[in-house]
Amino acid sequence: MSGLKRTTEKNLMVFSGRGYRELSEQVAEGLGTTLVPTQAYDFANTEMYIRFDESVRGCDAFVLQSHTAPINKWIMEQLIMVDALKRASAKRITVVTPFYGYARQDKKSRGREPISARLMADLFKSAGADRLMAVDLHTDQIQGFFDGPVDHLQALPILTDYVREKYCAEQLAVVSPDAGRIKVAESWSKRLGGAPLAFIHKTRDVNQPNQSVANRVIGKVEGRTCILVDDMIDSGGTICHAADALMNDGAASVVIAATHAIFSDPAAQRLRDSCAREVIVTNTLPISEDKHFDKLKVLSIAPLLSKAIREVFEDGSVTSMFDAEA
Amino acid sequence: MSGLKRTTEKNLMVFSGRGYRELSEQVAEGLGTTLVPTQAYDFANTEMYIRFDESVRGCDAFVLQSHTAPINKWIMEQLIMVDALKRASAKRITVVTPFYGYARQDKKSRGREPISARLMADLFKSAGADRLMAVDLHTDQIQGFFDGPVDHLQALPILTDYVREKYCAEQLAVVSPDAGRIKVAESWSKRLGGAPLAFIHKTRDVNQPNQSVANRVIGKVEGRTCILVDDMIDSGGTICHAADALMNDGAASVVIAATHAIFSDPAAQRLRDSCAREVIVTNTLPISEDKHFDKLKVLSIAPLLSKAIREVFEDGSVTSMFDAEA
Amino acid sequence: MSGLKRTTEKNLMVFSGRGYRELSEQVAEGLGTTLVPTQAYDFANTEMYIRFDESVRGCDAFVLQSHTAPINKWIMEQLIMVDALKRASAKRITVVTPFYGYARQDKKSRGREPISARLMADLFKSAGADRLMAVDLHTDQIQGFFDGPVDHLQALPILTDYVREKYCAEQLAVVSPDAGRIKVAESWSKRLGGAPLAFIHKTRDVNQPNQSVANRVIGKVEGRTCILVDDMIDSGGTICHAADALMNDGAASVVIAATHAIFSDPAAQRLRDSCAREVIVTNTLPISEDKHFDKLKVLSIAPLLSKAIREVFEDGSVTSMFDAEA
Amino acid sequence: MSGLKRTTEKNLMVFSGRGYRELSEQVAEGLGTTLVPTQAYDFANTEMYIRFDESVRGCDAFVLQSHTAPINKWIMEQLIMVDALKRASAKRITVVTPFYGYARQDKKSRGREPISARLMADLFKSAGADRLMAVDLHTDQIQGFFDGPVDHLQALPILTDYVREKYCAEQLAVVSPDAGRIKVAESWSKRLGGAPLAFIHKTRDVNQPNQSVANRVIGKVEGRTCILVDDMIDSGGTICHAADALMNDGAASVVIAATHAIFSDPAAQRLRDSCAREVIVTNTLPISEDKHFDKLKVLSIAPLLSKAIREVFEDGSVTSMFDAEA
Amino acid sequence: MSGLKRTTEKNLMVFSGRGYRELSEQVAEGLGTTLVPTQAYDFANTEMYIRFDESVRGCDAFVLQSHTAPINKWIMEQLIMVDALKRASAKRITVVTPFYGYARQDKKSRGREPISARLMADLFKSAGADRLMAVDLHTDQIQGFFDGPVDHLQALPILTDYVREKYCAEQLAVVSPDAGRIKVAESWSKRLGGAPLAFIHKTRDVNQPNQSVANRVIGKVEGRTCILVDDMIDSGGTICHAADALMNDGAASVVIAATHAIFSDPAAQRLRDSCAREVIVTNTLPISEDKHFDKLKVLSIAPLLSKAIREVFEDGSVTSMFDAEA
Amino acid sequence: MSGLKRTTEKNLMVFSGRGYRELSEQVAEGLGTTLVPTQAYDFANTEMYIRFDESVRGCDAFVLQSHTAPINKWIMEQLIMVDALKRASAKRITVVTPFYGYARQDKKSRGREPISARLMADLFKSAGADRLMAVDLHTDQIQGFFDGPVDHLQALPILTDYVREKYCAEQLAVVSPDAGRIKVAESWSKRLGGAPLAFIHKTRDVNQPNQSVANRVIGKVEGRTCILVDDMIDSGGTICHAADALMNDGAASVVIAATHAIFSDPAAQRLRDSCAREVIVTNTLPISEDKHFDKLKVLSIAPLLSKAIREVFEDGSVTSMFDAEA
Repeated sequence: MSGLKRTTEKNLMVFSGRGYRELSEQVAEGLGTTLVPTQAYDFANTEMYIRFDESVRGCDAFVLQSHTAPINKWIMEQLIMVDALKRASAKRITVVTPFYGYARQDKKSRGREPISARLMADLFKSAGADRLMAVDLHTDQIQGFFDGPVDHLQALPILTDYVREKYCAEQLAVVSPDAGRIKVAESWSKRLGGAPLAFIHKTRDVNQPNQSVANRVIGKVEGRTCILVDDMIDSGGTICHAADALMNDGAASVVIAATHAIFSDPAAQRLRDSCAREVIVTNTLPISEDKHFDKLKVLSIAPLLSKAIREVFEDGSVTSMFDAEA
Repeated sequence: MSGLKRTTEKNLMVFSGRGYRELSEQVAEGLGTTLVPTQAYDFANTEMYIRFDESVRGCDAFVLQSHTAPINKWIMEQLIMVDALKRASAKRITVVTPFYGYARQDKKSRGREPISARLMADLFKSAGADRLMAVDLHTDQIQGFFDGPVDHLQALPILTDYVREKYCAEQLAVVSPDAGRIKVAESWSKRLGGAPLAFIHKTRDVNQPNQSVANRVIGKVEGRTCILVDDMIDSGGTICHAADALMNDGAASVVIAATHAIFSDPAAQRLRDSCAREVIVTNTLPISEDKHFDKLKVLSIAPLLSKAIREVFEDGSVTSMFDAEA
Repeated sequence: MSGLKRTTEKNLMVFSGRGYRELSEQVAEGLGTTLVPTQAYDFANTEMYIRFDESVRGCDAFVLQSHTAPINKWIMEQLIMVDALKRASAKRITVVTPFYGYARQDKKSRGREPISARLMADLFKSAGADRLMAVDLHTDQIQGFFDGPVDHLQALPILTDYVREKYCAEQLAVVSPDAGRIKVAESWSKRLGGAPLAFIHKTRDVNQPNQSVANRVIGKVEGRTCILVDDMIDSGGTICHAADALMNDGAASVVIAATHAIFSDPAAQRLRDSCAREVIVTNTLPISEDKHFDKLKVLSIAPLLSKAIREVFEDGSVTSMFDAEA
Repeated sequence: MSGLKRTTEKNLMVFSGRGYRELSEQVAEGLGTTLVPTQAYDFANTEMYIRFDESVRGCDAFVLQSHTAPINKWIMEQLIMVDALKRASAKRITVVTPFYGYARQDKKSRGREPISARLMADLFKSAGADRLMAVDLHTDQIQGFFDGPVDHLQALPILTDYVREKYCAEQLAVVSPDAGRIKVAESWSKRLGGAPLAFIHKTRDVNQPNQSVANRVIGKVEGRTCILVDDMIDSGGTICHAADALMNDGAASVVIAATHAIFSDPAAQRLRDSCAREVIVTNTLPISEDKHFDKLKVLSIAPLLSKAIREVFEDGSVTSMFDAEA
Repeated sequence: MSGLKRTTEKNLMVFSGRGYRELSEQVAEGLGTTLVPTQAYDFANTEMYIRFDESVRGCDAFVLQSHTAPINKWIMEQLIMVDALKRASAKRITVVTPFYGYARQDKKSRGREPISARLMADLFKSAGADRLMAVDLHTDQIQGFFDGPVDHLQALPILTDYVREKYCAEQLAVVSPDAGRIKVAESWSKRLGGAPLAFIHKTRDVNQPNQSVANRVIGKVEGRTCILVDDMIDSGGTICHAADALMNDGAASVVIAATHAIFSDPAAQRLRDSCAREVIVTNTLPISEDKHFDKLKVLSIAPLLSKAIREVFEDGSVTSMFDAEA
Repeated sequence: MSGLKRTTEKNLMVFSGRGYRELSEQVAEGLGTTLVPTQAYDFANTEMYIRFDESVRGCDAFVLQSHTAPINKWIMEQLIMVDALKRASAKRITVVTPFYGYARQDKKSRGREPISARLMADLFKSAGADRLMAVDLHTDQIQGFFDGPVDHLQALPILTDYVREKYCAEQLAVVSPDAGRIKVAESWSKRLGGAPLAFIHKTRDVNQPNQSVANRVIGKVEGRTCILVDDMIDSGGTICHAADALMNDGAASVVIAATHAIFSDPAAQRLRDSCAREVIVTNTLPISEDKHFDKLKVLSIAPLLSKAIREVFEDGSVTSMFDAEA
């Protein structure tokens, strides 16, 4: 028989864009390795250049990038990294987006709109991505936008463990800031030993069209420590109004919790000045120094990402990371 | 110069699967044409045979099929029709599914599940479909599953026109059967002159886990004619329990309205025996004789489909069919 | 150097649709494993639900399904299983169809027909299948319909071994039921030590157009035990008439042999009542209890499938399973 | 409204490779146009250069090439022409191959063979072809190899019209040179008023393995003018032996008819020296001067191609060209 | 016959991203139409939103965007516009990039680099673009990166017409700033009546490795007005040094001409302070007010784009726009 | 847990087309293996047949073919080999083309030309190639034509090592035969210790249009041994004229060096009769006996290919083979 035989090895390598290298470094550290040294810089006309300093041939590549502002630049950088890996013979390329950009544009609300969340999935596929990994997608259907495996991680255990430990002595209620997010609140309730649910109902005064919106609290919150939960906080208006409504309704206090701290201006200021007792988020996105404030608690998502990447690399089960707890 | 010139004509042709030919015939009639004569039958081993009896070369083909039971058979028949059209040189192929099968499987709720709604979109693309047309998709994100244009039609104007005319003299409320469907109810409310909203909140008794679910009515329904709205009625359990809850809460009467009448057993019996005063649906799916009952009102979706197909054929605007009214 | 190294393992897993689980179980047993536990059921409206109960990440998946009636349902179930495996990160997916559905629709006999056998190949590819395995395709060209490797297995050795052992003491002839299948008969003849060939020529009476067809036996069958061979028996009419023609021509007896026992009604009755001495088939398709009859002999295809799957998994040679004998 | 409107025109243009320009010129003439002037030549190292001398933007392009020897060169030239047309904005590209090269390699007879007929279909698709047109494909299944419309033309009417007119006064029989081609002979028989069928059965002497093959005539040919039919004549051995067998069996005379005159050496010499009274072929392939002989009759395929191209261009029906007659 | 016939019309529509709307408006005006009204804005987190205010169904869409800084944002906006057009049923989508971003990254100079110019082509294809139009691509090979038609326009006639008229009375020489651009200079020379060629040879002192580079003028420039030509001016260093070298070599004066005025800092300052008598560019990219200076001449590329778009829309010839002159 | 585990092995296999088997044999030998036994021959009508005589399932296949004359035949043979490997379940297929055919057709110089170099990349992809390996592509951009990894090898070290050793005692100059190849000459200069550069400038006499072209030597060559370098020698006219120009300019002697010896007639005769002292090439293409001449030196490219294939197989680094030296 012709041919040369050889036992196959696989090699995990972690790559990071420039959006939020600190998180990537933590993830690599959690895996017991380091980021692959990479040259990345902008040319004078804002085009970007990327080159990896080590051979990546045959590797199982995980490409982390934070879809933070300027988001289009960082998405493009991640696409270019995937292209470079594909042409350098990486064996498998997993795009890791702790926060998946454009996730809110997941449908056409009106005619002649794009479905940008699907477009992003297609662009990553076109560049050469074999799979995606993301934390708390805005809607579950986005998993179906990518033509391949998607590992959908949940920050819930991280957030609820923290809340449980800190607030377990108090009477809790879990509150959704609008009707569309009640399912998330239900998951929280389960993990907090069956805390009662409530949510904020935004209503338009039907007798006075175009009139301002009222925030009505649906459910019993009086005297309770309300855990107000959402998937992301962008400019913070909705969630701060919801907190006010809860306090008006007799809540003992309000604790805000969300996975993605986008914190577009003036979110940090709003939250700092709000009636909330604590604001709990994860670091799926970088939070600049000037956006930190006293009552902000940032939990690290890095251990979750490290563990999930290890499971993927070792053909373990990502699902089981959450099934056991849910 | 070499070559032969000729003015281009386009030719609309309407094709129908065997799932619900009556609806297709109405659609064709509304367009001023007839269905393309088609041979379609089952072989002894349940394989199907399809052949079109007229030349379809260069036509703008609209292939209607009802995804009714046995749904896998009818989806496969539609796929085979698309294949036959592609190979027979149809210029453009639009798959028309008044009810889009497998729409509820639009995400992975747990690991190792399929995303069958995306799979169906891929299968139609693979067979040769250029575009999709559907009425009231279960979630808007399904539009993003198909790699091409999707015309997403709304049955809302048809249903609300009927309700407005018949019940305009009464005090109305619009009710959603669960928290996830409130946005649909909001659209109803707008078109019914700002009727107040309410919805049913299914709660588990948090003190008695695994205990039965209670249906609590959120919003004021006392003394009002409640229009209870949903996108589809499958076996009818949820909606009938919701109607009961409304009556228990003092509603004057309950009218049920939904786009898709799947009516799996024992839906017809449940609805007939329910406290509802009237049940209003459209015929996106066939309703067999034995599933009709006195207080059932079936509105035809055919004019909407005819109009949308005409707009697509004539490069008009499908969106404007709904924007004007919404 | 950055990165984590690890030796690669591969993991064979066998999955089964609901079309004919008994066969799948035998195949898994022959491989020394068990079927992956799978939830599979129909919703009220005939949509299907699938979920695997074990992690399948990185596995080498073999998905067995029997394309028996209702064939469209079972094909769709297999497509959905492939989708679920793809999204759950199976490494390679092999679709195993002991009988390949729609194989007879492998060409356009007239204009505006589909080529359903090609469509099925495209649908499996679109769902995520990497390769196909099938037994005795209706025509060899179907291998070329799939864009990837096809393992084409032959039931011939199984069938001829049985015939040789049982009928070796008699004077044999191998007979094809029509002119198009003579090549199959030739292979039989070779494996039966050069038994003489014959076949049935269906002729229309050219002087009396549209007159009934006569079955003429071409070749010498007088006094011989005729082995009448085909790839499949659907409703059984052709083969039973062929058997009659052989007996009329002086054959000592007729033994019918075929790979695929579709047995659409009234095949079982026809065969039972026919002049054939024995009917030999394999179990590529399930044969329900009521279709069994005394002179029916069903040989198991499971060992062949087990062996072929093992060769594929271990990068052995499937071809050599047949080359050695042919 | 923004935009500029304009009535759409379409423009048929006919292109020809260098394999057999005379045929292409006849086809263009039959359409009332001329071939698009094209530069085509070989570089010193046998690479080819192609350029069209007129604008082809928006045209409906038909690219004719003869797959004659050296066949790989002419196929490659046709691929390059398709690439040039795609990049020059042709609207639709139809590859016309009167004889489809590699058609006989349409399956894997043994392991590790290519399926070259499928590969050719894929190469044309990859280069940019939207559709194929071919005459008398070796097997009908090849239609299913191309992912798009295939117009499969039949030379039968041309051949039978000639035979009917010339030999109508004689007692005819239609003969297939082997068992695999009887269906073609049946079509001939129908069009010749029900002439009786016969065919040649090649048998190996089963008692003397590896012994020479005998050609037995099955059917009555004594005293008849036998029309011996096939799809192609390559080196001519089979068909000449078949003719001998017919004469030995008492045929009055033999007339050979086939669509594709490949005429690899020594076909012309064999046919000239054979017992055949006349050899009738079409010019789907060029027949060089030195391969002509007295009793050879070449019928032009050009009118059929012209008519089919016109039907395709005008969205007429190619199927009806044959249905009406068959 | 079933079906509805209708004469086909086509409708040209012009869309513009926000990179350089003034140019797009000029192009639309040159076509006798206006830009399609479009909503486009940034969300707080820098995601972008796009919506077209008119129906685009069936239109022949030309999507203009300037790949100016911040280039990744404007490329992404153009991709999103293409996605929206695809989903809104535009018939054909042409991406127009007067300056094609990332064109200089058209190869791997070293291992593990991306080929970003190919990636951009793939991203546009993936989003739904059918064709590309660009002016003076950095290398001609980039045409081959896109899988479809590319209309490659030349600014040369615009630039040379201006130069000829203004400097015809002087003794001219055409100079390339490096050896790699001599072919461009040759085209200039031809159009300027055969003006002599020269170029700057950058040499490293081979005896003193890593020593500074010398600019040697190859060709005769003494006493001549040197037209120093390139495809783009980025930060301006190379071209200004080349101008100095020419003056040192005795040139009478230097006129700089280039198609793309990227003008990254400090290009404007360098050029203003350089020895060049005039700097001639086109407006393929916007030049902000503060980058204008006295001796800068900006010629409009809009008429060229208008004319090319009209040719594409009307199935005319873009090539002939340049062939006639070259 | 279900399933069977097994350690993964990989198996390198080397395949060769018939274009230049000797080179392939040397490459295999350098790897410590032999070519996979393959049946390959032409049918009478010039169609080709290929079959591999050993199981290739799961192998890492390297398919070597020389794109020598008749080039279209050998490219097609390589495509057919790839198809056979894909269908026989090779795990990864690398197309190795020491000389990449049609590389010079890498752009549209005028309208309505093909981009054949891109087409070849697409054809190999379509047939099933996963990656390409080539030596000294005509332009680097061709790497971007293939949608996957391309290993671009350099013959430079082989050629310069030979020159350095043989001519190190002389005063060298490196000369490019035209302005477009100076970068190659620069690389030579670096590896030859900083030898001075020169090149030939082809000029048209601008005062006498359409007059013959003059070859002017740019740079100092007087008294030096000129190493005249190019990527390929086709018919040899350009390079021989360049050699003459150098001698006329006072060069001591001229040594010609190039990677690809296409040697179309009358290249061998021209070179033999030229003023060159030695002609150094590699054997990326076969050089027939009659094209050898005394002063021709052929260096073997086989060790480079063996080493690169080994690096690819073992997930080493191909880039580092050249970075270390460059």
